[in-house]
Amino acid sequence: MPAPPGSTPPPAAVVALPGGRDYAVHFDPLAELARHLREAGLRGPRALVVTDETVGPLYLDAVRAALGGAGWDVEALAVPAGEASKSVGQWSGVLDWALRLGVDRQTPVLALGGGVVGDLAGFAAATLLRGLPLVHLPTTVIAQVDSAIGGKTGVNHATGKNLVGAFYQPRFVLADPATLQTLPDRELRSGLAEVVKHALIADAALVERLERDWDQLLDRDEAVLGRVVRDAAAVKVGVVAADEFETGDRALLNFGHTFGHAVEREAGYGALTHGEAVALGMRAAVHLSASLASGRVAGVLPAPFDRADALVARLAPPALDAAVSDDALTDAMQTDKKRTSRGLRFVVLDDVGRARLAEDVPADAIAAAWRYARGE
Amino acid sequence: MPAPPGSTPPPAAVVALPGGRDYAVHFDPLAELARHLREAGLRGPRALVVTDETVGPLYLDAVRAALGGAGWDVEALAVPAGEASKSVGQWSGVLDWALRLGVDRQTPVLALGGGVVGDLAGFAAATLLRGLPLVHLPTTVIAQVDSAIGGKTGVNHATGKNLVGAFYQPRFVLADPATLQTLPDRELRSGLAEVVKHALIADAALVERLERDWDQLLDRDEAVLGRVVRDAAAVKVGVVAADEFETGDRALLNFGHTFGHAVEREAGYGALTHGEAVALGMRAAVHLSASLASGRVAGVLPAPFDRADALVARLAPPALDAAVSDDALTDAMQTDKKRTSRGLRFVVLDDVGRARLAEDVPADAIAAAWRYARGE
Repeated sequence: MPAPPGSTPPPAAVVALPGGRDYAVHFDPLAELARHLREAGLRGPRALVVTDETVGPLYLDAVRAALGGAGWDVEALAVPAGEASKSVGQWSGVLDWALRLGVDRQTPVLALGGGVVGDLAGFAAATLLRGLPLVHLPTTVIAQVDSAIGGKTGVNHATGKNLVGAFYQPRFVLADPATLQTLPDRELRSGLAEVVKHALIADAALVERLERDWDQLLDRDEAVLGRVVRDAAAVKVGVVAADEFETGDRALLNFGHTFGHAVEREAGYGALTHGEAVALGMRAAVHLSASLASGRVAGVLPAPFDRADALVARLAPPALDAAVSDDALTDAMQTDKKRTSRGLRFVVLDDVGRARLAEDVPADAIAAAWRYARGE
Repeated sequence: MPAPPGSTPPPAAVVALPGGRDYAVHFDPLAELARHLREAGLRGPRALVVTDETVGPLYLDAVRAALGGAGWDVEALAVPAGEASKSVGQWSGVLDWALRLGVDRQTPVLALGGGVVGDLAGFAAATLLRGLPLVHLPTTVIAQVDSAIGGKTGVNHATGKNLVGAFYQPRFVLADPATLQTLPDRELRSGLAEVVKHALIADAALVERLERDWDQLLDRDEAVLGRVVRDAAAVKVGVVAADEFETGDRALLNFGHTFGHAVEREAGYGALTHGEAVALGMRAAVHLSASLASGRVAGVLPAPFDRADALVARLAPPALDAAVSDDALTDAMQTDKKRTSRGLRFVVLDDVGRARLAEDVPADAIAAAWRYARGE
């Protein structure tokens, strides 16, 4: 919610990490970028901006204006928009560009855009001179609540998504709420899938507000959208601080993702947005949660899973392609990197706002979950 | 020194790091590998070994024997020996190999070899699934005392050495002293350059032993070589624990390296070993140390720099190619990634066993250091 004139803005959430690596997630206009760089101890004169061909034309001028006045010398590179830019080839291209410019270890890399740009630029920052200071400037809901927070960076590989990458934390995140006003509707809704996920796994109060304010969210009411995004980001901040390297509870953020990644693989990357695949995955995961709690589930889900299901349904994911078989989807889950040596691991809900990990899940429960996600 | 039968081996040095990432540097036979994996909490069944075409034929059987008996399933890849394997292309090849085998986040990557293999396999481990457990099995002096300890991983780039990489710490280091017996003489001497470096910057007692025992070292007396390597490794362990990301005193390990990297660039990588370039670089750095302490230096260096110089001279570095000009060398230093925004930074000695950083070094002192390194 924009602070009334004269009031103090709410304090930034801080990702608490060992080794002096704490960092803040600011919800603030891009115009404040130079101040935040200074306060984070970053100094010029050169800054590299990595963006994409959609976001660059919208916000690169604002970044240049914010930095130019403070004496920064801004160099920018725009990669093609879309998942295909998360490749070893594009990563190598960013490195070539940066190294030919002549960076040093103090040169910040600013990732201006959504999840693709954040993951690509983050991996480049992680691997240039063994690590340049990274700043995320997320411009989508999904990036502001999820991908810009927590240090997962990387690119895709022929054998699967996100298989090449590094854990590399930014110096800070600056999320400008105004950038969400230019998001295409489909991207907004895709981002809300991650908001719903964060609410379902960890924040029952946020579930209530989503149920109440859904229409205003879709209308992009600034106050409602701003508060929801901030609260959903806070869930991620807390989880990352508790488990930086995903050896424990951080895996709860994969709610809907084991199913969802299989959908993305089998539907072909790009046919669905990430959020649409996650929404489908959450339908399956909510059903699985009900199955594990109550045994065989037929027809309407029992409480409290009906409530979780209804919230996921508001995301209105497209139907799963009938040509993709449940077996193919289940096979695709086997390649997910979140598997352990002992087999697939699923995140299931115990209640609205509370999740846990489940291993050794029966095959028929998985098959029933796929059928449910199809609307059968 | 090999422990007498029935005695307790000396405790392993431990690199103390925040976030539960402490790790041990064991000096122990490769035959003990399965036990160390188990004690580090790593479990099979699959382990990936990355080695090179020189070291593989010598020690891969020993690794297979050590692991096979403990139920591990070993997959191995040997890259061509030599600096050219530190490339983005080879890194990408290691990733393709590992991902097609179907690794999971528990699959350890074992780097069996010298610095090239450690840097390449380490960077692959750092970037596979955002980080697989890494174990260094260094088989050269330079790797046992320096490159396998401290988490620097990476490959070279068209614009310079080690410009692409990550800080990524191993789970443990297992250095088998017996592997040093198969090192070519030139590699042994090259490794001793790093031993001399560690002694000069941080361990005056080790300087004394090097002066006394040099001939036994060159003869590979197991007890003498073993103790010297262990003590030189301990210097690295201490420095890394104090400054993991090279924001402070870790830079002292670059003694001789700002000059040395320039020599490598201008002589052409491969013409000199890394240790030979560092030995030449240390001659220049010792002279620079004397200049900064005493003003213009002509003829024999004043104490205590004469003593440091004599120890470096035992490394018998080849002469610097007369076709390479001092100006070209000085230019080459400008591209070194250890430079700061404020200019080149040199490590100089205050005394034998004590070093510091020097910035804003006069150009004529650098030129005089190059002339000294040439023997002029």
